[in-house]
Amino acid sequence: MNAPESPSDTCLVTGASSGIGLAICNELLATTTLSVLAVSRGAQSCDALDQLSARFPGRLSALNCDLCSDSHRQALGENIAAGNLVRVINCAGLLHDHDRALWPEKRIEDVTAEGLHSLFSVNAYMPILLARDMLALMPKDRPCLFASLSARVGSIGDNGLGGWYAYRAAKAAQNQLLKTFAIEMGRRRPNLCVLMLHPGTTDTPLSAPFQKNVSKEKLFPAHRVARALLGLMDAATPGDSGRFLAWDGQDIPW
Amino acid sequence: MNAPESPSDTCLVTGASSGIGLAICNELLATTTLSVLAVSRGAQSCDALDQLSARFPGRLSALNCDLCSDSHRQALGENIAAGNLVRVINCAGLLHDHDRALWPEKRIEDVTAEGLHSLFSVNAYMPILLARDMLALMPKDRPCLFASLSARVGSIGDNGLGGWYAYRAAKAAQNQLLKTFAIEMGRRRPNLCVLMLHPGTTDTPLSAPFQKNVSKEKLFPAHRVARALLGLMDAATPGDSGRFLAWDGQDIPW
Repeated sequence: MNAPESPSDTCLVTGASSGIGLAICNELLATTTLSVLAVSRGAQSCDALDQLSARFPGRLSALNCDLCSDSHRQALGENIAAGNLVRVINCAGLLHDHDRALWPEKRIEDVTAEGLHSLFSVNAYMPILLARDMLALMPKDRPCLFASLSARVGSIGDNGLGGWYAYRAAKAAQNQLLKTFAIEMGRRRPNLCVLMLHPGTTDTPLSAPFQKNVSKEKLFPAHRVARALLGLMDAATPGDSGRFLAWDGQDIPW
Repeated sequence: MNAPESPSDTCLVTGASSGIGLAICNELLATTTLSVLAVSRGAQSCDALDQLSARFPGRLSALNCDLCSDSHRQALGENIAAGNLVRVINCAGLLHDHDRALWPEKRIEDVTAEGLHSLFSVNAYMPILLARDMLALMPKDRPCLFASLSARVGSIGDNGLGGWYAYRAAKAAQNQLLKTFAIEMGRRRPNLCVLMLHPGTTDTPLSAPFQKNVSKEKLFPAHRVARALLGLMDAATPGDSGRFLAWDGQDIPW
């Protein structure tokens, strides 16, 4: 995925106003010549994105987008010329919400239909619908990439502790959806590489309530994770499509 | 799971009006002394269940139930005394509907938010919500079983063909949800065994539109599958909890 870039080549980054998504925008602007389309529900009123935009004039567009809405997702296409979308990096995810109405389940009794639906909508349905809606904008004739943040807790084989029912299962579903996408693209669009990436536990709003059980050397700053994940994306070839990789390049069991 | 049965011991079978669910009801009535609670959306107007009820007087109760409805699922409990529910066998699943508004996707362009939601509601959310709602009725002090039909196409590692996005991913999600349940029950309810079962391609309404590509010796009659799956359930111990087994007893990769 280290093809020569033209200034009109665009990378779409979702979940771009905070955490890993924001750090990836920063890193892309600092180390590539790509245009960055940074989206989240509040991207247009995000101070950190404003600052990035000022530091890298003309390179960053911030756009408010509810990625779970068909019409919002499809409207993204109006901002990208067909064939110019060389990378999609999906960093949007949901584990809990601010008022803790959504909270990772400790026990089966905590599982609810509403919680399942909310977590699956963001962590499973959205990434595959984003892939569907962005595919026509991605180039056919040169390497391009669709990468999405998954999570090691989504691994069924690696599940030893239990708990976090909806989040675990939504990430497992995302893995199956994107593996299926990778297989189909292997036939139809052999230049496209699809990756599922585990960032490690990163110091972000998503992990904030759970950091007390994580040792300091295992809690990564977002900029370090962004660098590691972009390194994996740069090194990936279409032959890697469909892999589920940790930040250190190790394959994770399904 | 070969504990002595008392006549008040009950097995709940979902998806009971046709296919594998109906065949399992038949087999349970013929080979055990269990009471069978047979549920589906139309169980009370199902001729085949009526005939079974006449052949095995006092052993079978048929009950209409929309298993995706919280209130319907919870009302099931009124039909079972706490501690008597020794087996739950979930055979309800959804791959397509009668008017083909829901149909397995061949291409990413066929994936829709509505299709994902419909298939996940039945194939992923429902089984874990059923487990949640039935747990209090299951005995703590003797072996009991929660088994659910999964499918080999839900295996991420075994996915070589692609297609069938929503069905594949919903079954993968079911596997992760029930694996998580098995882990938690291993600590809280060590007498409970949780199994995910792949029936093989069976001659049922679910597989009917796809049978032309299946060789005759690989298309199993439902009664044979019911016997094979009940054999696995009979042989299972709590140490098998959390396994994903094919009809022939082989473990399937996640």
